Amino acid sequence: MDPVDTGTTAFMLCCIIGLTLMIPGLALFYGGMVSVKSSTNMMMMTFGAVAIVGVLWVLFGFSMVFGTTYGGFVGSFTEFDGMKDLLQSQTTVSGLPVSLFALFQALFAAITVALISGAAADRMKFAAWMVFATVWAVLVYFPVAHWVFAFDGVVTENSVGGWIANKLHAVDFAGGTAVHINAGAAALAVAIVLGKSAMFGQLRKPHNVPLTLLGAGLLWAGWYAFNGGSALAAGNSASIVMVTTFVATCAATLAWLAVEKFKDGHVTGVGAASGAVTGLVAITPACGAVTPLGAIAVGAIAGAICIYAVGLKEKFGYDDSLDVVGVHLVGGVIGTLLIGFFASDGMPSAVSGVFYGGGFDQLWRQAVAAGAVLVYSVVVSFAIAFAIKKTMGIRISAEEEEKGIDSLAHRDAAYELEYA
Amino acid sequence: MDPVDTGTTAFMLCCIIGLTLMIPGLALFYGGMVSVKSSTNMMMMTFGAVAIVGVLWVLFGFSMVFGTTYGGFVGSFTEFDGMKDLLQSQTTVSGLPVSLFALFQALFAAITVALISGAAADRMKFAAWMVFATVWAVLVYFPVAHWVFAFDGVVTENSVGGWIANKLHAVDFAGGTAVHINAGAAALAVAIVLGKSAMFGQLRKPHNVPLTLLGAGLLWAGWYAFNGGSALAAGNSASIVMVTTFVATCAATLAWLAVEKFKDGHVTGVGAASGAVTGLVAITPACGAVTPLGAIAVGAIAGAICIYAVGLKEKFGYDDSLDVVGVHLVGGVIGTLLIGFFASDGMPSAVSGVFYGGGFDQLWRQAVAAGAVLVYSVVVSFAIAFAIKKTMGIRISAEEEEKGIDSLAHRDAAYELEYA
Amino acid sequence: MDPVDTGTTAFMLCCIIGLTLMIPGLALFYGGMVSVKSSTNMMMMTFGAVAIVGVLWVLFGFSMVFGTTYGGFVGSFTEFDGMKDLLQSQTTVSGLPVSLFALFQALFAAITVALISGAAADRMKFAAWMVFATVWAVLVYFPVAHWVFAFDGVVTENSVGGWIANKLHAVDFAGGTAVHINAGAAALAVAIVLGKSAMFGQLRKPHNVPLTLLGAGLLWAGWYAFNGGSALAAGNSASIVMVTTFVATCAATLAWLAVEKFKDGHVTGVGAASGAVTGLVAITPACGAVTPLGAIAVGAIAGAICIYAVGLKEKFGYDDSLDVVGVHLVGGVIGTLLIGFFASDGMPSAVSGVFYGGGFDQLWRQAVAAGAVLVYSVVVSFAIAFAIKKTMGIRISAEEEEKGIDSLAHRDAAYELEYA
Repeated sequence: MDPVDTGTTAFMLCCIIGLTLMIPGLALFYGGMVSVKSSTNMMMMTFGAVAIVGVLWVLFGFSMVFGTTYGGFVGSFTEFDGMKDLLQSQTTVSGLPVSLFALFQALFAAITVALISGAAADRMKFAAWMVFATVWAVLVYFPVAHWVFAFDGVVTENSVGGWIANKLHAVDFAGGTAVHINAGAAALAVAIVLGKSAMFGQLRKPHNVPLTLLGAGLLWAGWYAFNGGSALAAGNSASIVMVTTFVATCAATLAWLAVEKFKDGHVTGVGAASGAVTGLVAITPACGAVTPLGAIAVGAIAGAICIYAVGLKEKFGYDDSLDVVGVHLVGGVIGTLLIGFFASDGMPSAVSGVFYGGGFDQLWRQAVAAGAVLVYSVVVSFAIAFAIKKTMGIRISAEEEEKGIDSLAHRDAAYELEYA
Repeated sequence: MDPVDTGTTAFMLCCIIGLTLMIPGLALFYGGMVSVKSSTNMMMMTFGAVAIVGVLWVLFGFSMVFGTTYGGFVGSFTEFDGMKDLLQSQTTVSGLPVSLFALFQALFAAITVALISGAAADRMKFAAWMVFATVWAVLVYFPVAHWVFAFDGVVTENSVGGWIANKLHAVDFAGGTAVHINAGAAALAVAIVLGKSAMFGQLRKPHNVPLTLLGAGLLWAGWYAFNGGSALAAGNSASIVMVTTFVATCAATLAWLAVEKFKDGHVTGVGAASGAVTGLVAITPACGAVTPLGAIAVGAIAGAICIYAVGLKEKFGYDDSLDVVGVHLVGGVIGTLLIGFFASDGMPSAVSGVFYGGGFDQLWRQAVAAGAVLVYSVVVSFAIAFAIKKTMGIRISAEEEEKGIDSLAHRDAAYELEYA
Repeated sequence: MDPVDTGTTAFMLCCIIGLTLMIPGLALFYGGMVSVKSSTNMMMMTFGAVAIVGVLWVLFGFSMVFGTTYGGFVGSFTEFDGMKDLLQSQTTVSGLPVSLFALFQALFAAITVALISGAAADRMKFAAWMVFATVWAVLVYFPVAHWVFAFDGVVTENSVGGWIANKLHAVDFAGGTAVHINAGAAALAVAIVLGKSAMFGQLRKPHNVPLTLLGAGLLWAGWYAFNGGSALAAGNSASIVMVTTFVATCAATLAWLAVEKFKDGHVTGVGAASGAVTGLVAITPACGAVTPLGAIAVGAIAGAICIYAVGLKEKFGYDDSLDVVGVHLVGGVIGTLLIGFFASDGMPSAVSGVFYGGGFDQLWRQAVAAGAVLVYSVVVSFAIAFAIKKTMGIRISAEEEEKGIDSLAHRDAAYELEYA
């Protein structure tokens, strides 16, 4: 294969640093929004999910995603198990050491699983969460990532990959389906199985807005690695992707704040943070497909819709505590579908949407990809969560929830701020 | 033009991640220093400014800064509007995709506008701030950045750029004039128009010192991208620039703490954070011009002077709440002028100052650049702020200020830390 | 020497950004764990140490580490003093500008000194800390780094370097000995000289768990630059190193939490953070020597042992407040010795351990390196701390300690969170 390109390798090595910033970023974004009585637990769900998925990835996860396919559905369990032979093989993925490609994808897996935790705030047993993260990675993430990210021939020549990437030809530059729709749909299932928290329906006040804004900022920084790194090369495509990622985030922040002002009469810190994250989610699949002006449109549309989408939980009565459904599922669907409208074939993804003379061909492909991931994830996630509920139990006791999951389950107060 | 250099492109792609860390970095540096009743508002001013400037940049800002000049004063409004054609042109700026160069400069614009907000703590209407950010970007930042950063021929061959870069030949490696003097002068104007806060004259206690130190740390990390990335190449110049940036920051921190100990009898966390930021500001224009020992001198001088400069506001009665004038304006002027003394022609900027046998030739060029930016920014910023005051109003009511801008203007408390 | 490789240079430039994130990372990791009355002081110890070591490095530190050796013990004091001639020499270190190599190593020095501060929580005079940091850098870090990091011929051809790197041939990829054993041993000495804090023996509750988790996250992100950057090239070695760093951290986190659950019946946020940092410490020397499965073993072993090692202080009665000994000394020794067992010669370090057919040859080299650094550091650190105690005094008064070092020594409360 190609020799190592030091420039592209340098870029992707640094993307690992950027992606790792998303771990505290997500932990704080979520951790700042929950009650002070749940914040340690909330942050630990992110760290715990990353830790278990990282180990699974090395053992067999990479193999399940990028190994030779079983019918386009999932890769070989054992082809790259333990990853050692792979590292020694000097294989490259378009100029990138294959170990680095594997690590980049490891962080995608870890972060996707952690995203789900926002639906489980305040009330999920930590052990149940760790079991859910393990089983969900194996039964949902690894297969779906195979569908979307395993292009034919990517790791070994002549290998055959997943159906969405290679048969359907839906465009998903950096994971609108495999990451955001996937995690958002799982969050919906988990919220339904868990049931409503004692605080549902009341106004949930974030306990620490600066941490949530900091979390959003770290996510924003890391997201360039997520989207830009998906170009797998330090060149024009990655540069364009970062431009669209930047400006969509700006536009979504403005849109969310504008609607919030219109709707509620004032703007909030959590609104600014949520708007930014919504823009990042929506542009993720589309970052290589739309122009900078298209990116402004995608961001603005997502920001303006998702602020309403987070209200669906009150309407339908599922307690998606931190709006993983409203932001990641809805935002991911919006971004995935808008490719069908706004894609411009001069951009890296090289497809045309309805507004750019491409007709409806791309749109139905996007809809099928979004729908398939959504349905698969909701159904299997529900089954996993339900099985956990019926065996080890999934929810802490009402008393623990009342006193706060931190103090009883973790014997840990997040803060000791008294000077006395 | 040159083909894409993957190494240089990799570096600049990662600089985007670094620059983005400055967004939460600045939000926390400022947000930690204000009262607990204003911290959400303070952080939102940064996020809001970045969001609006990002969109403006794509629409016409990049064009105004790097389009063909109108007399050295401002670039074409429409040459690169929407940036689409630019992205598709495969143009490079010395081996860098032009889209990436544009994004790097977008973050300079966004961060510069956000810097001003430190003068407006506790008392500026959020809507007025957003309008100010919009108009200031268009009337002040875009023209001044054109003067300083638009070198002849940088984006399109034979294009003609701004007067400071191409006629005056002042040295400003990474924005001592266009960023720090510019923002600091605007802060002075805003502080005067806003008037004093109710807390002026009292000891303003920072509500969260750890967040301010964290903010300074994130700014420090991101500043390497700011200064090093201004070399626009992954090579010896960027490396030297990072060395001088590092050691000037260290020296300024020590100098600030030493003077604080001498002056007040003890050292403080905000002192350590302010010292570090002062060093970063002062070395920004000079980072390519001075030796490592020269950088220690620049940092130490700036640190020792700026701790006194932050007291000017009490003397002259303008309420520059978080010392944007004392740190960014004074620090920027110090760094810009010290180039005239400490520049060593073996360094990347290749000029000699008074102490290195260069006579006074460079010094007057530095003084003219600093003075021109300072005067233009103060005057136009004052006009903008004054116009806002007379139309939509610029300041929240006394009652809102008394109760805290967060709770009344944003219906948002930064913290809910009660365990009850 | 070699021409500049822009890819490798890009990687290392960005590693500087990553390493700088470890400054606020460490400050928060430690700062969150102490009492609210000591948190500003704790964070300032990190910033202060970095600032003084940065200046020393430029003045003569780089020369002491990488200048021509005096008998393998320490480099020339003056060969590269002030670093100016070095920057202008266009020398490269395997394709890397020498100035960048120097800056990378500067941050190693700065961070190592800052690590020690965790043993001095709540009770060390700030001035005494700054003096200790200065003298320790000169008498301990610069010599030991010369032993371990100064390979023959690294900066100037034909130069002769340190004894551990060139004679003993112990493997220490990124500083298990020079950084972690070194800092951990110094922490032990400082804790003994300082004596027990008034709070010793009581349960020390962290005042801000989210900040500690955030600190761990920033350290994790920055550690990729620490370990990966030690490959000094953007290629396969750095990629493999990042994989082992990632998965060892994941495994150590799981191991720590599992043992904590088994031992105490619940898991904690500080446990998650400590587990992650323990994995990072233990894999630091070994990251280039072990396979991904070996890295899981190293992480899991370190995590499971260090949670017990942090209890040694109660048993032996030294007040290593934040467990620098238990995590960095013990974790560093574990990682250094496990190379002797788990090293696999297909990995970048190209040595074989006991379990991979290499016999005991590598193991004794590892043990000698670990032992030599440990003994040298303990002895000299004790002498430095003792000399400070007997001259300027090292500990604050009992009254200051009772009221909290922040309020009396720094006239600074970390938080002002009252809304009144």
